[in-house]
Amino acid sequence: MSSRDRPCPVIQGIMEIGGKWKLAIIYYLLEGPKTFTDLKNLLEVNSKILSDNLKDLERKGIVMRKYRYPPLRVTYELTDKGRELKNVIEAIRVWSKKWIEKTVEERGR
Amino acid sequence: MSSRDRPCPVIQGIMEIGGKWKLAIIYYLLEGPKTFTDLKNLLEVNSKILSDNLKDLERKGIVMRKYRYPPLRVTYELTDKGRELKNVIEAIRVWSKKWIEKTVEERGR
Repeated sequence: MSSRDRPCPVIQGIMEIGGKWKLAIIYYLLEGPKTFTDLKNLLEVNSKILSDNLKDLERKGIVMRKYRYPPLRVTYELTDKGRELKNVIEAIRVWSKKWIEKTVEERGR
Repeated sequence: MSSRDRPCPVIQGIMEIGGKWKLAIIYYLLEGPKTFTDLKNLLEVNSKILSDNLKDLERKGIVMRKYRYPPLRVTYELTDKGRELKNVIEAIRVWSKKWIEKTVEERGR
């Protein structure tokens, strides 16, 4: 409970990546570049929520857009800052394997 | 992108702890038990949001309420499942130290 006056870097980090959609987007982008439609299908989320979250992640320098061809398409990819969230996702994976994998009925989506 | 049919345990885990308030609550509870008022002051969040998030974390078996005395008061503590999120918070801490600590102006709360 020290240093209450300055913003704690961990809390700042949580505010940047917090939100279940942001972590889920980062998880899928760690696999490789994805189009908007790829992400929409993977997350089963509406376009507005996905678009808002992607814009926020772009603003924070975690995700970037890239133009690829052929055929011409826009993909979303992680920046260096975003890719280094791999360890956070790995820690969630280890925890999930232990505490969640068996309780599929509690899925709660 | 494999096993799209079954819910992926990592995504399930993200859905359980996702949401910036949940991770922030877990972060503060790792320090030790806290009252509702402690958490409200630390998070600078309104009572409704805090209460909803605590109930959700209780339902998921991550947080539990305890009655302590003297003086009689209710505290929130992490369960075993909750305490094992320490590694997730640690991973966020390492990332935040590298990528956020210097950019206080981007705090975004």
